[in-house]
Amino acid sequence: MGKAIGGKSMWYQKEICELLKVKYPIIQAPMAGGVTTPELVAEVSNNGGLGMIGAGYMSSQQLREAISKVKAKTNMPFGVNLFVPERITISTEEVRKAAELLQSFKDDLKIKDDGIPVSFAQSYEEQLEVVLAEDVPVCSFTFGIPDDATVKNLKDRGKILIGSATTVEEAITNEKVSMDAVVVQGSEAGGHRGSFLDADSPLIGTMALVPQAVDAVKIPVIAAGGIMDGRGIIAALSLGAASVQMGTAFLTCQESGAHPLHKEAILSSSETLPEITRSFSGKSARGLRNSFMEQMKPRESEIPPYPVQNALTKTLRKAAGEQNRTEYMSLWSGQGTRLSKNLTVKQFMEELIRSASETVERLGR
Amino acid sequence: MGKAIGGKSMWYQKEICELLKVKYPIIQAPMAGGVTTPELVAEVSNNGGLGMIGAGYMSSQQLREAISKVKAKTNMPFGVNLFVPERITISTEEVRKAAELLQSFKDDLKIKDDGIPVSFAQSYEEQLEVVLAEDVPVCSFTFGIPDDATVKNLKDRGKILIGSATTVEEAITNEKVSMDAVVVQGSEAGGHRGSFLDADSPLIGTMALVPQAVDAVKIPVIAAGGIMDGRGIIAALSLGAASVQMGTAFLTCQESGAHPLHKEAILSSSETLPEITRSFSGKSARGLRNSFMEQMKPRESEIPPYPVQNALTKTLRKAAGEQNRTEYMSLWSGQGTRLSKNLTVKQFMEELIRSASETVERLGR
Repeated sequence: MGKAIGGKSMWYQKEICELLKVKYPIIQAPMAGGVTTPELVAEVSNNGGLGMIGAGYMSSQQLREAISKVKAKTNMPFGVNLFVPERITISTEEVRKAAELLQSFKDDLKIKDDGIPVSFAQSYEEQLEVVLAEDVPVCSFTFGIPDDATVKNLKDRGKILIGSATTVEEAITNEKVSMDAVVVQGSEAGGHRGSFLDADSPLIGTMALVPQAVDAVKIPVIAAGGIMDGRGIIAALSLGAASVQMGTAFLTCQESGAHPLHKEAILSSSETLPEITRSFSGKSARGLRNSFMEQMKPRESEIPPYPVQNALTKTLRKAAGEQNRTEYMSLWSGQGTRLSKNLTVKQFMEELIRSASETVERLGR
Repeated sequence: MGKAIGGKSMWYQKEICELLKVKYPIIQAPMAGGVTTPELVAEVSNNGGLGMIGAGYMSSQQLREAISKVKAKTNMPFGVNLFVPERITISTEEVRKAAELLQSFKDDLKIKDDGIPVSFAQSYEEQLEVVLAEDVPVCSFTFGIPDDATVKNLKDRGKILIGSATTVEEAITNEKVSMDAVVVQGSEAGGHRGSFLDADSPLIGTMALVPQAVDAVKIPVIAAGGIMDGRGIIAALSLGAASVQMGTAFLTCQESGAHPLHKEAILSSSETLPEITRSFSGKSARGLRNSFMEQMKPRESEIPPYPVQNALTKTLRKAAGEQNRTEYMSLWSGQGTRLSKNLTVKQFMEELIRSASETVERLGR
């Protein structure tokens, strides 16, 4: 079975592990919105993977605190993910109309008139300053690519940069701007689609997308979408990926900050429930179908783009969580629901390594 | 690298090969509509895979002839695929309205008034009689499951039966009716979706669907959807599949009967072009986006169910092919387009085996 290391087969390329300075080519997806607690991130890194802080919705102060807490819990490398902002224009009248679409849900949750938000997203520039200033070894980007100056600044400080892609063209674009690696996100993935060249967010399955991206770029491809266990890891590496990124599988871990009812919903879901919706944020994302998604579906064309819709639904999502009303929560999930487990990160990482090794043994019998 | 056979690693389970009496766990998908020529089917079987006749649109006489021609070209096992009919009811008025939707396309192709078809599909019962009477070792089913009497009749004559599923529930349903194996079709797949429990045709990616189905049934799972080369084969086997079924990859082979412009279109396509449409047949299927699909998209809700729409577009598809008008042809294709090649079946099968072996070697290094 190839080179044996401590009696176990070596089923991954050491290059990607050397680049990221991790033991295993397993990245915990940077899920924004409170999922990636310092405990989750640190435990993934402590157990040989790469923990990632989902910083998209964090203020610079929150990000600084999150980094500091992760560092208190691990000496191993970890990363931060940022959302690259797009320029959008929208009139006050359009924002008002979009807010009206949400009024009946807010009434149902007894949310007092919360007005119209004046700013829609956290400052990307301020988040970048924190990443530059702090000792964060890895920085990944979603929804777009950073500009040349940003890339140069980050690289000058020795950061490893990872981009996101949902098509071959997007993977090539990431390579062109000198990303060190690219996450290639198949249609199975939960949460937001990382699409940035095509607003329609193409849905290419992981099995088809990964080898086509691998053939098109020289930088390491990190496969994401539907990977839930060691079988999925070895499948992704078979397709030519250097590493995997797993979101849903870590979301249900005990250290994750996801709402307990969100975890329960995934743990008891069938694979047909996670659907693509723009209703929560204005960007395509996959989550468990619920009443909010169903009621917003006929109004999909009236939903404003990200980050406007995301800002407009903020109080709604917060109240839904506080009141345990899953019908209005964003229950992000990939399509591998039946494979989800409620373990500690340590237990889960050990199981991943064991099942990955077993899968390689099975193939080589 | 496990048991070496003739210097090569043994990367597949022998059980499925013994069941199907083939050398390799590689099934050529039964593509209906003239793609599966006797040459294609026989060459796949002659080179160690399982060739399949796509008989869904064949009369019993055409099926008898196809079987006879395949047998003249190979002594190896092969199979036939049948479409299990559903009961639908539709009024003459609804059929007339649906036909009207197609009139402008027919005018453009200068098709003379071809009237309204009186029968919409080939007789499944007559096709079954042929399979029972002829020495056809394998019979697979799409769009549903055969009834108990049919299963018994076929099994009494020693046929191996394979069902189709696009969800875990459909895989379980196939096991319950005693199918010997089940094709589990991920969202990447080209051509018709095999869904039969949910008219909405769930689109679960291969990476997520296969391991969930493998965990839910005891019968062998045959993975389909986005598998184009040896990397895909090993990925599918990693996920727990016993075998793969490949359609698009064989469609562009030289022996396939697909229209030359259909092959060219796939060979030069990006992975984002194949889209799901009901416009050609009334059933969800994946094909390269063209003018017909785009123009019919806003009318999707007015399209009658299969087999009515399929019968109504028959002269249109035929004329489009004869006149080399790809904008009106059903250019079925999966999402792995960039991996497609125009080889002979023999060359392609050899490349598959070589690249599958290489992939296992790479994992085990």
